[in-house]
Amino acid sequence: VRAASALVVLLTACATTGDPQRDLTALRAESDDSYVLAASLVTEVGPRFAGSEGDARAVQWALRKFTELGFQNVRAEPVTVPHWERGDIRVEIRAPGHHRLAALALGGSVPTPRRGITAQVVAVSSLEDLQKLPDAQVKGRIVYFNGRTERTRDGSGYVKAVPARRTGPADAARKGARAVLIRSIGTDARAAHTGTTKYEDAPKIPAAALAPPDADLLERLLGNGPVRVHLAIASRDAGEAQSANVIGEIPGETPEIVLLGAHLDSWDITPGANDDAAGVGVVMAAALRVAALGKPRRTIRVVLYANEEFGVSGGKAYAQAHADEIGRHVLVMEADSGSGAAWRLHANVADADWPLVAQLAGQLQLELGANGKEGGTDVEPLCKLGVPELFAMQDGSAYFDVHHTADDTVAALDRAGLAQVTGVFAVLAHEASERGAGFGRLPAAK
Amino acid sequence: VRAASALVVLLTACATTGDPQRDLTALRAESDDSYVLAASLVTEVGPRFAGSEGDARAVQWALRKFTELGFQNVRAEPVTVPHWERGDIRVEIRAPGHHRLAALALGGSVPTPRRGITAQVVAVSSLEDLQKLPDAQVKGRIVYFNGRTERTRDGSGYVKAVPARRTGPADAARKGARAVLIRSIGTDARAAHTGTTKYEDAPKIPAAALAPPDADLLERLLGNGPVRVHLAIASRDAGEAQSANVIGEIPGETPEIVLLGAHLDSWDITPGANDDAAGVGVVMAAALRVAALGKPRRTIRVVLYANEEFGVSGGKAYAQAHADEIGRHVLVMEADSGSGAAWRLHANVADADWPLVAQLAGQLQLELGANGKEGGTDVEPLCKLGVPELFAMQDGSAYFDVHHTADDTVAALDRAGLAQVTGVFAVLAHEASERGAGFGRLPAAK
Repeated sequence: VRAASALVVLLTACATTGDPQRDLTALRAESDDSYVLAASLVTEVGPRFAGSEGDARAVQWALRKFTELGFQNVRAEPVTVPHWERGDIRVEIRAPGHHRLAALALGGSVPTPRRGITAQVVAVSSLEDLQKLPDAQVKGRIVYFNGRTERTRDGSGYVKAVPARRTGPADAARKGARAVLIRSIGTDARAAHTGTTKYEDAPKIPAAALAPPDADLLERLLGNGPVRVHLAIASRDAGEAQSANVIGEIPGETPEIVLLGAHLDSWDITPGANDDAAGVGVVMAAALRVAALGKPRRTIRVVLYANEEFGVSGGKAYAQAHADEIGRHVLVMEADSGSGAAWRLHANVADADWPLVAQLAGQLQLELGANGKEGGTDVEPLCKLGVPELFAMQDGSAYFDVHHTADDTVAALDRAGLAQVTGVFAVLAHEASERGAGFGRLPAAK
Repeated sequence: VRAASALVVLLTACATTGDPQRDLTALRAESDDSYVLAASLVTEVGPRFAGSEGDARAVQWALRKFTELGFQNVRAEPVTVPHWERGDIRVEIRAPGHHRLAALALGGSVPTPRRGITAQVVAVSSLEDLQKLPDAQVKGRIVYFNGRTERTRDGSGYVKAVPARRTGPADAARKGARAVLIRSIGTDARAAHTGTTKYEDAPKIPAAALAPPDADLLERLLGNGPVRVHLAIASRDAGEAQSANVIGEIPGETPEIVLLGAHLDSWDITPGANDDAAGVGVVMAAALRVAALGKPRRTIRVVLYANEEFGVSGGKAYAQAHADEIGRHVLVMEADSGSGAAWRLHANVADADWPLVAQLAGQLQLELGANGKEGGTDVEPLCKLGVPELFAMQDGSAYFDVHHTADDTVAALDRAGLAQVTGVFAVLAHEASERGAGFGRLPAAK
């Protein structure tokens, strides 16, 4: 690879020598390379929601940065994305007292009528709890999901809490609710959290998440008696827009490809430092660390996906656009779990390759996870077509303090964690690039 | 005092007996009494900015609560307050890139023209730093004060940082600036902070505070080169409005008065749990603890002041309205420093009484502070007329994380700290009420 001077600056710890084997420790160098890239995206671009003006600037940033760093075959592949505009929101307790609440519309929420909706609140703890309520207690009311998100290392607290956001509005609508409020899905003390809701075939009702302290206030008042809430959302479905998957490569000796992915977009209300500027930094820097060892055997292809957040448009578009070369993809890895250190190695590989995964986990001092259980969102369409995946699970203890909130700023990046994850990605990408046999294919549509 | 049943419930630990001397330990009971009152004001009323609808409801809350708790001579004394409306704000970096910044207008800021102001930013670290700049480097620009607030136990970090907010806009305007931005005066990681600015006789230019992470972003970009910022503020001077000081008493045997004060108002963007629902809870609960020992020798008068935040209207109005009974005020104490534990005892007393202050500090295990240096804002007009003051300095280490921000919620109250402070106020109020000699007068207009 023709290393640009910026690359050299970024990777001073990783001097290339004649014998790549001698420098494998450089793959795990103590370096801020991924942090510097993540901070650049956050600082120079900011929020970059699919189809927005910030999204277009993010694409330009990625093209420029790939080029500056000496990547080859740099290109933007068009992706059509849905575009939704949040508009203003107002949520107020109208009785007892009068309190304005900090809240964010859920992604894709329909607007309220212009004058808003004012109704009594009925609280439920879960989708199951909602189903137990007679429809008469839901009809005409605002359903409030009060479930709390547990802080966990493996993100299971989030997984457990998120159905209230994803299908709560649809389920409540089917029982006649006028709107839905949820306690923010997250572990933070203050900020409201957004994220997609899915109406499926249910009537579409407006939905929003309350910031945790405002949820506390609502719950204290609900403990005393009936509460009336006013909700006004001025969101808008703005149809389709154009975005792009941005790709840069470290060309190899063979036509085979090792794909490292992350997503370029963020939610509209956040600069998305952990979600997913961190991942963008990790995969770009990991590829450069491999490149610094000399021309790889297989091509390292870095894909910065469009619109993960609001429908995985980029992941789906990539699999379609590259249908004729799926068989050349030897391995995929995605970085979309923030900046915490990797601690466990999962995979989606053929059984015959599981011992190799165990060996790599041991070499990287990671716990050995499960086969076929965890994986990245954007690369899932490839895995369904039989492409093997390695998935380095990162420490999620702090991630959901800021995930999908305005608090996901550079200050929330874990620098030491990022450096460690970058090393893990570099070692795994190098292994996938250089080892003779490659990985076996998965059965398609696993 | 005719104790109402609510009082009995609140003070189960403080049973009254025939001999008040026997129960002095009850003054320092481990009780949530002040916390319960503070949480009630925050939860049932919420934000209560001078002249707002919330302010009117706070007055009603205080009248009702005093009455329920068995206070006597409960009344609202009219206070005319200035009323200012914040309106919407938009602050954006327009180049390089495009970033929306979290910000709050400073209290009293004039609006921008409707289309906003867009100008290059010039950063300064302090008022002194600003004075050193040639006017040509300030004229037509937005001046940005980047000073950080140091976390301190005694609040000195805040005192040191606050001049940028209070007089920065006036000083910048005199040098031709079009607007002022400041890094929020506070130690928190996220929320923007408001607070009054004073234009004095300078041209009035719009001014706002950036949330700390947004200030970080601006500073990172300023490190790379010129930055253009757009600022639009739709604030409004809404003239005068009516509010009230709300007063409740524990009548004593003599016409002399021990005054315990706190302020009922809050900034508009916060429920004001620490500032100053905490103080309201402390002074009400401390008076009830004294009352539970039996009828006091001197009257304990609790004054919940109107509009401390935006011009100390209530403190000034009280001193005027009670000019004919200033001489009957034996001692004043104010609680307006959040919910941290008291750790040092300051005073504004005659020299002859300083040994008594030292003795009380020892008895309460507080450090002994200084005479004539620290005191409450609302009671300052009384002290200037010669009324002695005791001032229990509270731990301010965490206070400026939330002070004047939306984060000042019930969750930010220090329950253990509140219980301790309430005990300190109760012991000092009891001492001031019961001791034979009272305190000596200060020289007027000290």
